[in-house]
Amino acid sequence: MISKLITEIQKKNAPIVVGLDPQLGFLPKKLMKDGIKEYGESLEAVAAAVFEFNKAIIDATYDLIPAVKPQIAMYEQFGVSGLVAFRETVEYAKSKGLIVIGDIKRGDIGSTSGAYALGHIGTVQVGSTDFCPFDEDMVTVNPYLGSDGVKPFIDVCNKNDRGIFVLVKTSNPSSGEFQDREVDGRPLYELVGEKVAEWGQDSMDGEYSNVGAVVGATYPEQGRILRKLMPKTYILVPGYGAQGGQGKDLVDFFNEDGLGAIINSSRGIIAAHTKSEYAKFGEAHFAEASRQAVVDMLDDIRGALGTK
Amino acid sequence: MISKLITEIQKKNAPIVVGLDPQLGFLPKKLMKDGIKEYGESLEAVAAAVFEFNKAIIDATYDLIPAVKPQIAMYEQFGVSGLVAFRETVEYAKSKGLIVIGDIKRGDIGSTSGAYALGHIGTVQVGSTDFCPFDEDMVTVNPYLGSDGVKPFIDVCNKNDRGIFVLVKTSNPSSGEFQDREVDGRPLYELVGEKVAEWGQDSMDGEYSNVGAVVGATYPEQGRILRKLMPKTYILVPGYGAQGGQGKDLVDFFNEDGLGAIINSSRGIIAAHTKSEYAKFGEAHFAEASRQAVVDMLDDIRGALGTK
Repeated sequence: MISKLITEIQKKNAPIVVGLDPQLGFLPKKLMKDGIKEYGESLEAVAAAVFEFNKAIIDATYDLIPAVKPQIAMYEQFGVSGLVAFRETVEYAKSKGLIVIGDIKRGDIGSTSGAYALGHIGTVQVGSTDFCPFDEDMVTVNPYLGSDGVKPFIDVCNKNDRGIFVLVKTSNPSSGEFQDREVDGRPLYELVGEKVAEWGQDSMDGEYSNVGAVVGATYPEQGRILRKLMPKTYILVPGYGAQGGQGKDLVDFFNEDGLGAIINSSRGIIAAHTKSEYAKFGEAHFAEASRQAVVDMLDDIRGALGTK
Repeated sequence: MISKLITEIQKKNAPIVVGLDPQLGFLPKKLMKDGIKEYGESLEAVAAAVFEFNKAIIDATYDLIPAVKPQIAMYEQFGVSGLVAFRETVEYAKSKGLIVIGDIKRGDIGSTSGAYALGHIGTVQVGSTDFCPFDEDMVTVNPYLGSDGVKPFIDVCNKNDRGIFVLVKTSNPSSGEFQDREVDGRPLYELVGEKVAEWGQDSMDGEYSNVGAVVGATYPEQGRILRKLMPKTYILVPGYGAQGGQGKDLVDFFNEDGLGAIINSSRGIIAAHTKSEYAKFGEAHFAEASRQAVVDMLDDIRGALGTK
């Protein structure tokens, strides 16, 4: 799967992913009104609005980007209906040729991680029929439970040619509270990074492994160190834009081959219409504002990488 | 919420919780057959079977136990249909007076954790109507992202009188890989435990906090240390039975007041009919086997605590 992602990144000269993290605060009023008109004041109404919102953003950007990353929490908050919208979003994005990274941050004891893996990147069998319940291409995984919480995901990756990104150093302000604590004279995230590299050795897919890592754009120095520690590991880099990261800070997340990292922006793209820079588009043209924000993000990142 | 849980534990003299973690491997064949008869070979069929299974176990045990703990992965693996069964299980358990601990192990950056918290133990507003999407009483939370990944859950607890259990030392074999690493001369799980105690200070509900901890039954020595480090923290203890823990090993998870811990058994109870001890019940009487397994577990734990 990582080689497929790399092919798409190269084809579009776009090492970026758009985070589809819809929030009620910036969903265009018209979409909510349409949803409520059809389903009343209900979770179904929000789910319908969320899917229409995502569909418009995918339609406006899919030719520019290799992948989208729906954050499942933003759907799960609306219960079962929200998860219907998540499933529809995955399906629609794939129909447009996009790779889908489910930002699910799951992780549990062995058999339970196995269930998550089957549900998201694997198949479950009922009688003689196989089903792909959520059917993402790749997902994010939390490592706090250690190897036996992560390996069931890797087994499913190896079986079905899918991928994972394991949380190593997250983008949020308090990520250092545990992740930066010194263990044997080095921060915990380095140990986790080494484990990720080790876990990935049997999942090579071309030059890189299907077992990737998450390292926040907000921590470029740590990114530089982790880049060297995990040379065959693709790094998913959240925190660009709204959380503060910029193209020039992200150069060291990449390898010499110009590969090795994919930068995510969520609110910076999908809520572009709410920002002063893109206000001229107006709420009705939110998807065009998102497209312009993608163009500007690509310009920033290509400039920093010298690939304009 | 923790005071409500304590009241129920005392009323039933039962510091235990039954984990509702259905797996296809031990779902009685008749239930699957009925599901497939009604819905064909589909995820809906499994979901129907899972709910009927849970309902029978709840009906057979609710008078003996204070709480159930559905593990959401076992539902999520069956996609949206599985999550319908999760939601129905939560609702049915609550209708029988049980407290529901959603074993979701979520944890993300601030705004995203906030979305999980609202969806599981809070409310979301659509127009002028409030909805409780999954509506558990308590949930489990992963601490790897630090304070800003946990606090949104605590805020929702404080607003709605709900509770959380934060993963401190998990029951699985590889939990030590990161959790046991020494930081300033002490294992990481102690640091996490101290943070849990600190986070819980503003969420007191009687003698204990609505912010609890997860510590595996398989690590009784660590349980003893953590018990002292977090005197006001309720400990959810998974890993009894199938994972190897026994009543006599669990005494030190409790405080002098006889409170402070609640022991979970999942497969040991709900898959009792597959074990030689309870084979006499037969698959058709799986729920009676589960009831007997609850009686035996209570006997073991009351014996160890001297509360028979």
